[in-house]
Amino acid sequence: MTKLRKVSGGVCAARGFTAGAISAGIKYPEGTRDDMALIVADGLALAAATFTTNKVKAAPVLLSMANLRAKRTRAVILNSGNANACTGAPGLTNAAAMAAAAALALEVKPEEVLVCSTGRIGVPLPIEKMTAKVPALAGGINRKGSLAAAKAIMTSDTVPKECAVEFVSGGKTFRVGGLAKGAGMIDPNMATMLSVITTDAALTRAELRAALRLAVERSFNRITIDGDMSTNDTVILLASEAAGRPELADFQAALEAVALDLAKKIVLDGEGVSRFVEVEVRGAKTAKDAKRAAEAVANSTLTKCAWAGGDPNWGRILDAVGYSGAAFDPDCADIDYDRVPAVRGGMPAKTPFARLQAVAAKKAFKVTVDLHAGAASHVVFTTDLTEEYVRLNLGE
Amino acid sequence: MTKLRKVSGGVCAARGFTAGAISAGIKYPEGTRDDMALIVADGLALAAATFTTNKVKAAPVLLSMANLRAKRTRAVILNSGNANACTGAPGLTNAAAMAAAAALALEVKPEEVLVCSTGRIGVPLPIEKMTAKVPALAGGINRKGSLAAAKAIMTSDTVPKECAVEFVSGGKTFRVGGLAKGAGMIDPNMATMLSVITTDAALTRAELRAALRLAVERSFNRITIDGDMSTNDTVILLASEAAGRPELADFQAALEAVALDLAKKIVLDGEGVSRFVEVEVRGAKTAKDAKRAAEAVANSTLTKCAWAGGDPNWGRILDAVGYSGAAFDPDCADIDYDRVPAVRGGMPAKTPFARLQAVAAKKAFKVTVDLHAGAASHVVFTTDLTEEYVRLNLGE
Repeated sequence: MTKLRKVSGGVCAARGFTAGAISAGIKYPEGTRDDMALIVADGLALAAATFTTNKVKAAPVLLSMANLRAKRTRAVILNSGNANACTGAPGLTNAAAMAAAAALALEVKPEEVLVCSTGRIGVPLPIEKMTAKVPALAGGINRKGSLAAAKAIMTSDTVPKECAVEFVSGGKTFRVGGLAKGAGMIDPNMATMLSVITTDAALTRAELRAALRLAVERSFNRITIDGDMSTNDTVILLASEAAGRPELADFQAALEAVALDLAKKIVLDGEGVSRFVEVEVRGAKTAKDAKRAAEAVANSTLTKCAWAGGDPNWGRILDAVGYSGAAFDPDCADIDYDRVPAVRGGMPAKTPFARLQAVAAKKAFKVTVDLHAGAASHVVFTTDLTEEYVRLNLGE
Repeated sequence: MTKLRKVSGGVCAARGFTAGAISAGIKYPEGTRDDMALIVADGLALAAATFTTNKVKAAPVLLSMANLRAKRTRAVILNSGNANACTGAPGLTNAAAMAAAAALALEVKPEEVLVCSTGRIGVPLPIEKMTAKVPALAGGINRKGSLAAAKAIMTSDTVPKECAVEFVSGGKTFRVGGLAKGAGMIDPNMATMLSVITTDAALTRAELRAALRLAVERSFNRITIDGDMSTNDTVILLASEAAGRPELADFQAALEAVALDLAKKIVLDGEGVSRFVEVEVRGAKTAKDAKRAAEAVANSTLTKCAWAGGDPNWGRILDAVGYSGAAFDPDCADIDYDRVPAVRGGMPAKTPFARLQAVAAKKAFKVTVDLHAGAASHVVFTTDLTEEYVRLNLGE
């Protein structure tokens, strides 16, 4: 395994990329915060992407899916404050207008631009205000623009999310870096979650696609905050080819490290989150069983409420595994909080309750469920469910 | 359709049944509240029952499943304060001891007694304290004991739940009545939910089983509060045969009315509930699609938070339908709050937002989603998700 070194620069860490941001007054008054971002490849880059599997797909998702058919991609234009979802035919026109405005300013083809939006659903984009700002946005992109772009796409996120790594492969040095936003409506199989990752590695399009699919499966698709899957989820990978060709396994490791780091940052910054919990189900009969059991625990409202109270409530965990559909004998199940036994053979372990409470009182801990039914395992990263989460989502 | 008349008496409304309750100090100090209940048929009754589908089944569920194989049933003994779940072999012994104590006091066979427990998971029953109280419990049963029994099985319920109806069929008068407890861990396919329903109708065991299965499918299996399915859910139907044989359809209607009334009472009394919401999905391609879409909406954390805030957030509803797996064209979907259009053809309807807000501000309202993809429909009864719910479930 190649050694990964963390570097700064986020989505601009890899050679061949610039980024920038601007305030267009989409949701908040103009000038109060940036709400548009642009990420640009110096030359034509190869792109791969994964999108929400929700049947209700926002206009920018539909447009980006179509534009990915272009041979090369030149830029990604993003906005916060408005998701451009459930906006019908005018929504598609507006998403195309965003791409066209960026293409005009960058002197590239409209189909070489991908579009991401996040924010309110069902409200038309203030498209004139937005396109009017694109020339200035395009004029301001630079090699240090990653943080500004990461900030501009925040919605209820409290911190911008960036990550970049460097690795050596076959004597050459490569970089993979990215930015992301998350916060609410986070669930495996994508979320209200946008991420753009860049690299200077040169790989074929099929290799990039396969690498991204696997990396997303092992990172963004393993996080869940509230079990709700959004209409706008997008992860885009752009490759500038500026550094030549690495070993595929080295690149995969670096891509997964960046994706997992960004995914964990999304969970940690989830709405009202007070605890970060890794749920591992092992000893499952099948991989599907391991996944459904881990996700049932991670999405159990009662279990998440218990965690919010620092209660190592293993009864609710066992209950969730029981209704998950996974095959197992409840009289054989074990549950640990970190490495402290909570359940052995389906019954309370002889651990003083205070020791379990000490684990559940921590900001971050791991729950391991061993079904003793086979050899499959699955890991999910999740959070507690707090009163603050509810308060933040009471709506208008 | 036969006419149903509401009557008093709950689980003792039908001829041939008595009930009572006593304080055994299971969770709270003895004398502070009743926590054991007994429901007894004057003679041997026919019984049918449905239980949790959770793989983790509490000891009383396993014992009652076994005892249902007896030809007839004479009594149901119930307790709150302790679920006798995840208690291993000693738990089964304790459940059998409850049945044996009741059998001894009533001079019947142990296998003619069914057992229900609700409360904490993973804590051994204080069985000596409990069995010591059974003679007094059995000595105190009477025709007016339903309310006391309904109160004794409450956990976080705030009100006891009873219902009874009378109907005339073929010139004879029949009654169906019952009691129930609910409060938390409520989800379709049974919940931390106990219900005993009695009738004086004489039907075959196969008829009773089929009638109960259908009634549960249309009532208790349509309610959801938090999406968590408990280890102890039980619905028992006892028939004394004292009133002779009704038309089967008349009996079915009465049984369903009682079950639906009890199910709705459980939802209305859910933990921290401030809103009762009926979710109907219609125009689905298949019955399965209608069900999965309705349940996705009813269990969507974000949708439930919006309702708690009185926000008629149709975007979250459409999002939930989108990830439910139901087949539909998002550009054709309609959503109504009561009869006020919120979405038409996948886009915001031209309804002033204040009109939708007025509906969502009510204590009870109906959300209708029309997928325009077929003719199947499904109804689920659910609630909002409040800060109080989280507070109540923070645990120890």
